[in-house]
Amino acid sequence: MLLHLCTWTEVEAYLKQSSGIILPIGSTEQHGPTGLIGTDAICAEAIAKGVGEATNALVGPTINVGMALHHTGFPGTISLQPSTLIQLVRDYLSSLTRAGFTKFFFINGHGGNIATLKAAFAESYAHLTDLNIPNAEHVQCRVANWFTCASVYKLAKELYGNQEGSHATPSEIAVTQYLYPESIKDIPLLTSAASGHTIYGAVDFRRRYPDGRMGSNPSLATPEHGRQFYELSVKELSSCYLEFLSAD
Amino acid sequence: MLLHLCTWTEVEAYLKQSSGIILPIGSTEQHGPTGLIGTDAICAEAIAKGVGEATNALVGPTINVGMALHHTGFPGTISLQPSTLIQLVRDYLSSLTRAGFTKFFFINGHGGNIATLKAAFAESYAHLTDLNIPNAEHVQCRVANWFTCASVYKLAKELYGNQEGSHATPSEIAVTQYLYPESIKDIPLLTSAASGHTIYGAVDFRRRYPDGRMGSNPSLATPEHGRQFYELSVKELSSCYLEFLSAD
Amino acid sequence: MLLHLCTWTEVEAYLKQSSGIILPIGSTEQHGPTGLIGTDAICAEAIAKGVGEATNALVGPTINVGMALHHTGFPGTISLQPSTLIQLVRDYLSSLTRAGFTKFFFINGHGGNIATLKAAFAESYAHLTDLNIPNAEHVQCRVANWFTCASVYKLAKELYGNQEGSHATPSEIAVTQYLYPESIKDIPLLTSAASGHTIYGAVDFRRRYPDGRMGSNPSLATPEHGRQFYELSVKELSSCYLEFLSAD
Amino acid sequence: MLLHLCTWTEVEAYLKQSSGIILPIGSTEQHGPTGLIGTDAICAEAIAKGVGEATNALVGPTINVGMALHHTGFPGTISLQPSTLIQLVRDYLSSLTRAGFTKFFFINGHGGNIATLKAAFAESYAHLTDLNIPNAEHVQCRVANWFTCASVYKLAKELYGNQEGSHATPSEIAVTQYLYPESIKDIPLLTSAASGHTIYGAVDFRRRYPDGRMGSNPSLATPEHGRQFYELSVKELSSCYLEFLSAD
Amino acid sequence: MLLHLCTWTEVEAYLKQSSGIILPIGSTEQHGPTGLIGTDAICAEAIAKGVGEATNALVGPTINVGMALHHTGFPGTISLQPSTLIQLVRDYLSSLTRAGFTKFFFINGHGGNIATLKAAFAESYAHLTDLNIPNAEHVQCRVANWFTCASVYKLAKELYGNQEGSHATPSEIAVTQYLYPESIKDIPLLTSAASGHTIYGAVDFRRRYPDGRMGSNPSLATPEHGRQFYELSVKELSSCYLEFLSAD
Amino acid sequence: MLLHLCTWTEVEAYLKQSSGIILPIGSTEQHGPTGLIGTDAICAEAIAKGVGEATNALVGPTINVGMALHHTGFPGTISLQPSTLIQLVRDYLSSLTRAGFTKFFFINGHGGNIATLKAAFAESYAHLTDLNIPNAEHVQCRVANWFTCASVYKLAKELYGNQEGSHATPSEIAVTQYLYPESIKDIPLLTSAASGHTIYGAVDFRRRYPDGRMGSNPSLATPEHGRQFYELSVKELSSCYLEFLSAD
Repeated sequence: MLLHLCTWTEVEAYLKQSSGIILPIGSTEQHGPTGLIGTDAICAEAIAKGVGEATNALVGPTINVGMALHHTGFPGTISLQPSTLIQLVRDYLSSLTRAGFTKFFFINGHGGNIATLKAAFAESYAHLTDLNIPNAEHVQCRVANWFTCASVYKLAKELYGNQEGSHATPSEIAVTQYLYPESIKDIPLLTSAASGHTIYGAVDFRRRYPDGRMGSNPSLATPEHGRQFYELSVKELSSCYLEFLSAD
Repeated sequence: MLLHLCTWTEVEAYLKQSSGIILPIGSTEQHGPTGLIGTDAICAEAIAKGVGEATNALVGPTINVGMALHHTGFPGTISLQPSTLIQLVRDYLSSLTRAGFTKFFFINGHGGNIATLKAAFAESYAHLTDLNIPNAEHVQCRVANWFTCASVYKLAKELYGNQEGSHATPSEIAVTQYLYPESIKDIPLLTSAASGHTIYGAVDFRRRYPDGRMGSNPSLATPEHGRQFYELSVKELSSCYLEFLSAD
Repeated sequence: MLLHLCTWTEVEAYLKQSSGIILPIGSTEQHGPTGLIGTDAICAEAIAKGVGEATNALVGPTINVGMALHHTGFPGTISLQPSTLIQLVRDYLSSLTRAGFTKFFFINGHGGNIATLKAAFAESYAHLTDLNIPNAEHVQCRVANWFTCASVYKLAKELYGNQEGSHATPSEIAVTQYLYPESIKDIPLLTSAASGHTIYGAVDFRRRYPDGRMGSNPSLATPEHGRQFYELSVKELSSCYLEFLSAD
Repeated sequence: MLLHLCTWTEVEAYLKQSSGIILPIGSTEQHGPTGLIGTDAICAEAIAKGVGEATNALVGPTINVGMALHHTGFPGTISLQPSTLIQLVRDYLSSLTRAGFTKFFFINGHGGNIATLKAAFAESYAHLTDLNIPNAEHVQCRVANWFTCASVYKLAKELYGNQEGSHATPSEIAVTQYLYPESIKDIPLLTSAASGHTIYGAVDFRRRYPDGRMGSNPSLATPEHGRQFYELSVKELSSCYLEFLSAD
Repeated sequence: MLLHLCTWTEVEAYLKQSSGIILPIGSTEQHGPTGLIGTDAICAEAIAKGVGEATNALVGPTINVGMALHHTGFPGTISLQPSTLIQLVRDYLSSLTRAGFTKFFFINGHGGNIATLKAAFAESYAHLTDLNIPNAEHVQCRVANWFTCASVYKLAKELYGNQEGSHATPSEIAVTQYLYPESIKDIPLLTSAASGHTIYGAVDFRRRYPDGRMGSNPSLATPEHGRQFYELSVKELSSCYLEFLSAD
Repeated sequence: MLLHLCTWTEVEAYLKQSSGIILPIGSTEQHGPTGLIGTDAICAEAIAKGVGEATNALVGPTINVGMALHHTGFPGTISLQPSTLIQLVRDYLSSLTRAGFTKFFFINGHGGNIATLKAAFAESYAHLTDLNIPNAEHVQCRVANWFTCASVYKLAKELYGNQEGSHATPSEIAVTQYLYPESIKDIPLLTSAASGHTIYGAVDFRRRYPDGRMGSNPSLATPEHGRQFYELSVKELSSCYLEFLSAD
């Protein structure tokens, strides 16, 4: 059930059954010479839809621009500042909590969002309580990264070993190939990816990772791998969501 | 060309040809008992894609949650505060201007976004200049509402007369029916819509507009109408974008 | 009744009769080589006083610096950022709503304020509700531009045709001549005003509109015209205020 | 020279002679049962005009709402939050410094503004430097309170002894009587004013100072006293401004 | 009683006896060629502990970075912006007021903090009331500067006359010598300190006060003087705290 | 070398040798019925001093209030909002980067700070670049948690097994016992600690963890254990700091 394809009366009915909602969050950032700029948003959105179908959960609109300041040295990247993203999450939760939602399950496609999301959750819990919203005390947020699912991780290791890397990884590229086969970029990767550098600011990042990849070899990706990663994530995150929902 | 389906090297190449980008912006808000909550984002996104194809322009990710505070009395609505949306736009423009973009064409699906977008543009022009970004002086933003296109307006008048109303209109519902025929809601509208009230806060809005519609009769909408509205908008906004791009 | 010339006990008494207040808002910005920098504030303040007298309404202090970022390329202009103006309006409404006011009628002298004011109203409605102020749900704000009154527009067309232009217009200059005859600038305008350019940032604005006028010929203004514009505005906005006040 | 009655070309010419500007700042707050709500803004504005005339200085628009949160328990009071006032001052200085002003002389009518103004000056110096504005290093702000002029203080002591008090004082009421004789309130003050309590929040303030006065007996004020206070302030602050201007 | 050395159950018990807490606030800023960068925090912390012991009051953690923007031209200085410090104080008071504290006694070691603290108190009183915290109306804050104690001032005059100066004073240096004798800097001060200049921005400050001292001769300081200043401050501020606590 | 015990000329000299600084950050929050409220700040500060001595590094003032919103249901806890902490870190880095520091090593005593610190680093890198500070591109921040040192973790497992828990742990209590033996609380812990619950808001946290401990048995702590943890942390973090410093 996609929130965008529901009416408000359907949401009203849904809230009598459940107070949970899935919010996909990705990023709009460079993913190396062959990876799609929308990779993180595309994966999060597709997997969230899959989880929503598997669990009869409502799936909200995708937050498709996240915290990617370190990638802004590459054209096409768009980033919120962390303090803007915190404010955005506060506003989302404020709208939805007043309506009766209390369980917020963020399906996340970008490692760089995690810290800011956690900060945003903490700030929001306090803020909602300040506003004296009836349900504020019962609000619960969770960030669930599809790429850290145990089953995903295991398959990535099997398929790619340490060529999985940590950005523009074959696993995420594979998911986008499965979803958008017509957008597979057939470009040879002439050099191996830089790796092992800590992430600091945008200028520094581009200096260290000149083509944008971090230790990955995305040319190993195939649409068929993507299908497997997609299905594993949907399965694992569906369980995870149901557990989250049923926990007190 | 969807930014989300490009690589950063493709964006780099694009920037040698053009400094323009189309940014769809919608809203996530109630649209009456039969209208989709995602109506404004769905329309803006689809029309922006159409314009991008027609003009070879890059189309950024959809801002699918906008300024809809007055609709938050209805479940499912999500709104940013105006000051959050201003900050978000500032962040988008800051990322993209540094990369070389200077012409920002926002294709908008929601009247409630216009005022805040204009405020955001003014704040961003000054902010970008403060940051001493080389291109800051040449940055230009425009908000283009598909629903105020002359051709759209004319057709809506012909088809619906004053049953077009001003929210949850048959024209916008028609576009969503054209795009998502499987999500057409077959629910009779038993009463006529309230109309003529000024918009103030969320509680007041729901009191005055109990089912969410504002003077509209969305049951007049058909997918075929939607196709016509879609095509008229794409055509008119394509001209509008090209003019914007070529103006100094 | 000017708030500044009342005591708090008089305001307390007034609130038993009325919960309405008029708030003049202008700008401090260049108005071409012959127009006063305070034009927008001067007009708004004088007309608001007139409306206050005609309707027995309380008139608050003039917000004499508004949103004029695009004029800051000309010396003497002062502007708030939109986000500052939103915060200012929130603070005004927070003080006054707690005291019992609920109907806020902003008499505006500057087109550039409108978008930010509308954003500020939306943000304030939500904010006041968040604070659990008893009257929050009934707060209503309206922006009433004297220069868009039908009677004003008609007279300007009659007197000036398309030499009215859109900034540093003869009509607004005339009102300041009527109010401050000793400050009439007797300077010949050697060139015709630039016109037809979209407004972007401050540097760009000054490049396109080198003397600050936008399509206007302020040398057509006379103090006697100013008197007529003043009287028409007061009359039309007085009706408008009374309607606003009596509407539920 | 009032900025509001100048053109931008006159300001341009002025800046060749002087980089100084006088900014009146007052407050909109209760002043006891007989004092005008606009007292602080009225006094600051009139005295600033007088100083401007005596020194050929440009006088900006009056900041007529300041920091008066502790008075918001009385109807008619309007206050900015300190953080809003800081932002407002930052915006003023940002506009004016870019134009070439560097010496900002705030003539202040309200004790409650002083702390926030000082904080705003410190924040602005750093902010302007951050923006790399050429003159940023030479920006100087001063707050000059008319009511703490030595000559004013001496006369108030002579005329009123300890009935001067500290809010709704006969000296400030006298200045408003001199300026607005038609607004003198002829109401007997039946009780003596409370005094000696520290200022905390708004509810607490009203509990301690039930009629709003703080230790003052404003019934001693006369318009003739007001004339004397006005003239003394103008004289003393004119010297003060000229010294400020000539100091390196 | 140091809050940092208590358990939460001890604080719970304490709150049954008292709702007062002492909060030391200093600064991290240059104090001339021989003064410690931590001078203001060191003095405030030590004196606060002394007052806490003398009065059985709880002493919170030291705010050791304050408002020192004008000193940031000297390496080692760290400053908050005033608006950040306001936010920090709001957060402290919000946490502590919810727990039951209402009397906040800030023992301050830095003149530059005073204005911002006062602004922060005003903003916090209003903010706490907005949040509907039960005790909000009874919250009281006071800033008590050890260096303006009458007894301290008298001794400084006796010992140093006008060589006390106003920054990097022998009195504050003496207190740090008493507390950290091992950190006494044995460096000759070859020139006399600059004095008499107004404080503006950081670059300007360093130009006027090239070694950081303001009119002071810290070489007069001795650890024994420091002991006396320490004891006088503790005694005087203890009385002051007890008065504050017992006042309604 | 403690920054607080240096002069600015010593810092100037230090900057010729090193651009690194250690910043201890803790929290002021409940640590169960026997743990000190200052535990996290005490540990971070002491270990940072040890690392500073071992590596000749400058150690800045301790940030002793961090992000502890979830503990604010227990009296004595003080927390910043994440957005305030981000602003605070931005201000610290802005002051220090202008002075020449580029390597910021945060020694952290509180798990709840990590997410916000990471968000703050990202925001600061971008902000410093916006300000055009010469060294901005080379700024590097790292958060180093003493409690996640491999050697610390190993010893904790050996000594306490799974009674280490995750809050009010015997290891951190032990460090405070070693540092403040006079503040050891001799209170029997009658019940075992709750464990296994996710952290959400403050009210929820207290409901789930009624005495504040999370799965820990702090009664196993001894001062001698504390000495060992202290020494292991200092050793491991000293290596870590030197590596950080020497990395390009």
